[in-house]
Amino acid sequence: MTTSRVINFGAGPSTLPQSVLEKAAQGLLNFEDTGIGIAEISHRSKEFVAFISNVEALIRSQLNVPPTHSILFTQGGGTTQFSAVVLNLLARHKLLHPELTDDERVMDYVLTGSWSKKAFLEAKRLGGARANIALDARKYSKDGVSFDNVPPHDEYAFSPASALIYYCENETIDGVQFSPDPSAQTSFPFTILPRERSGLLPLVGDHSSSFMSRPIPHLSEHAVIFAGAQKNIGPAGLTVLIVRQDCLVDVDAAAKLGATPVPLCLSYKTLAEGRSLYNTPSLLPIYITGLVLERMQELGGLAYFEALGRRKAEKVYAAVRAGEERGVFQGKVQAGSCSWMNVIFNVLGSGAESRFLAGAEKVGMKGLKGHRSVGGIRVSLYNAVTEADTDKLVDYMKEFVSEASSFCSA
Amino acid sequence: MTTSRVINFGAGPSTLPQSVLEKAAQGLLNFEDTGIGIAEISHRSKEFVAFISNVEALIRSQLNVPPTHSILFTQGGGTTQFSAVVLNLLARHKLLHPELTDDERVMDYVLTGSWSKKAFLEAKRLGGARANIALDARKYSKDGVSFDNVPPHDEYAFSPASALIYYCENETIDGVQFSPDPSAQTSFPFTILPRERSGLLPLVGDHSSSFMSRPIPHLSEHAVIFAGAQKNIGPAGLTVLIVRQDCLVDVDAAAKLGATPVPLCLSYKTLAEGRSLYNTPSLLPIYITGLVLERMQELGGLAYFEALGRRKAEKVYAAVRAGEERGVFQGKVQAGSCSWMNVIFNVLGSGAESRFLAGAEKVGMKGLKGHRSVGGIRVSLYNAVTEADTDKLVDYMKEFVSEASSFCSA
Repeated sequence: MTTSRVINFGAGPSTLPQSVLEKAAQGLLNFEDTGIGIAEISHRSKEFVAFISNVEALIRSQLNVPPTHSILFTQGGGTTQFSAVVLNLLARHKLLHPELTDDERVMDYVLTGSWSKKAFLEAKRLGGARANIALDARKYSKDGVSFDNVPPHDEYAFSPASALIYYCENETIDGVQFSPDPSAQTSFPFTILPRERSGLLPLVGDHSSSFMSRPIPHLSEHAVIFAGAQKNIGPAGLTVLIVRQDCLVDVDAAAKLGATPVPLCLSYKTLAEGRSLYNTPSLLPIYITGLVLERMQELGGLAYFEALGRRKAEKVYAAVRAGEERGVFQGKVQAGSCSWMNVIFNVLGSGAESRFLAGAEKVGMKGLKGHRSVGGIRVSLYNAVTEADTDKLVDYMKEFVSEASSFCSA
Repeated sequence: MTTSRVINFGAGPSTLPQSVLEKAAQGLLNFEDTGIGIAEISHRSKEFVAFISNVEALIRSQLNVPPTHSILFTQGGGTTQFSAVVLNLLARHKLLHPELTDDERVMDYVLTGSWSKKAFLEAKRLGGARANIALDARKYSKDGVSFDNVPPHDEYAFSPASALIYYCENETIDGVQFSPDPSAQTSFPFTILPRERSGLLPLVGDHSSSFMSRPIPHLSEHAVIFAGAQKNIGPAGLTVLIVRQDCLVDVDAAAKLGATPVPLCLSYKTLAEGRSLYNTPSLLPIYITGLVLERMQELGGLAYFEALGRRKAEKVYAAVRAGEERGVFQGKVQAGSCSWMNVIFNVLGSGAESRFLAGAEKVGMKGLKGHRSVGGIRVSLYNAVTEADTDKLVDYMKEFVSEASSFCSA
């Protein structure tokens, strides 16, 4: 079994630590000596309630989440949160500012890739013209149509008092990520965001594909952070939410004032009051996520994975640049905006991409094909991809470049 | 590992076949020889796409789902569907009958237990006074306040042209289920339902806790059937939908006419067009469900499980009646309305219930405590509870009765 596992660079669902999977395989038959498997046990059993509360604690301590914020677990992935953040934060705005007309409840979207664009389109479906583009990074791209960069701070045009300000921290499809260095122009412009009169920010961050890979800048100022588990921390079927408590709003009270009624399953307040157990949660994905987070803690937490993530990304980008110099590869993302999680590049020449993929598969590396909307190669370097896995890929890339260049010059 | 497993009579999440869990434990590390575990593989990989399409086929063939109906997979459980059916079917009604006022879009709810009541309350949250009670079974209960029966057909008061007619086939908390015998007065009154002008029924059935335990009467006439997997067929985190294709409506077109905008994650049409892969599904719960359904098919499908389910329920109810005769047990549900899936009874006398539960646990049987809102004992007899497990429980019940009666007469 062990030897037959391949190296999986898939963009999500994505690779998980083998030690975790082996432990989970045991938990499937017997969860913590209850004699009942984790897929079979009641979510209200004392054993599972203790487990989920420990999962919360593991996130809270490693990410340094302050007591002003609740950590919640739900289902439906980022797509469900695209709707939920709009409905909950429009309801909040209605309750905070009943004197405003609904047309004045602007939602500011920062578009740096395919996922933030999808979220914007959902805001438009649910909120019409109130969905506003505060920035469209395509205007600053090399070809004028692609998402390949994070523009400098003075290009953002935020509304003075929006109901929500939305961004996607790492764009999985496009390989664009905000810089973790606050002094870089490609960092997220937290300091220029328009604040509410109360001093709070209605800031929403989609952190799906970078969650728990490095610290979240200005975490305590966010209204909502959400993340599907299926990148760095677990299987698909679990969404983690970090919600500032003033955003756990009474959506029914807002509906009485005329706000769009919110399906109960999307209400953050309902989730929080039920401690994520209002209805049956996805126990199995939560379990595996808990095991991953425990292992993270043992290895040294975010500091360990941040350093590891930086090293892995640097190695792969260096191999891409070396390939560029030989005319074999072409990086897609502009300098300063490159994702640590998803490295995207083209393999130049007719049939070369297929050769690259087939060669990789031959030596046991899968999941390298880029998203169908972007093409090319995508190397996903989530937490469970080891440095040894990365080195093996880098060796393969070097070898490919060397063979391709000798082929060209032949 | 094997010997340490207990017999789990929990109401859901609930027991799964050990052979399935053992196979799933292997799949966690290596799914169908891909070298990638099922929690790690892309939902768009050819292997997973083939797998999910086989899960659909296994449901379609065993339940005899006609080609007029789509089988869809989603997340969020029954609670999410409480909202989704209202929003999709109100949108459908708006498109079909734009000439009616919204107040005329009545939704008829049949209340036979805690879950149909919850669904009704969600319809009221989203649809206000349009949510109508076509039947409240509490009026026909022994104590005037409990859900303990299915009333006779002439007690239902359906609206002449409703946007949806809603029922819950098996009430997990209250142990009330419609009779499978169409001539019984406690069967669901399919024949007296008011049809649309087109002849179709806007009939919605929550089949969460009886799904795949026996055939679904009048399946082809339903608009929507939904079921959480975590009772008879799999782990929590997967909801199965069977939707008649005229109910895959363009919710955006309805919103343009003034209907409530529908979050994209709840749109049946979006789910269907994406073949349940519009966004990342919960692969792991789908996988285990597929393994359960394969095993069902091998064992003889619904006919096998229907006969088994009938035998198991008869045995437990006989033991309850025997205990009643000795003044030790008291069944809660009226004759003719008793669930095959969840048998509910009281253990009479001070401290007797705790003694019953502790004694059961001592001989390796768990999950027998009734729901907190109803109390008493609840024996859940889902498909994976074997006849041998049931016999063991029945023996224990007999022994308990015999000891309790000798104790009383001493």
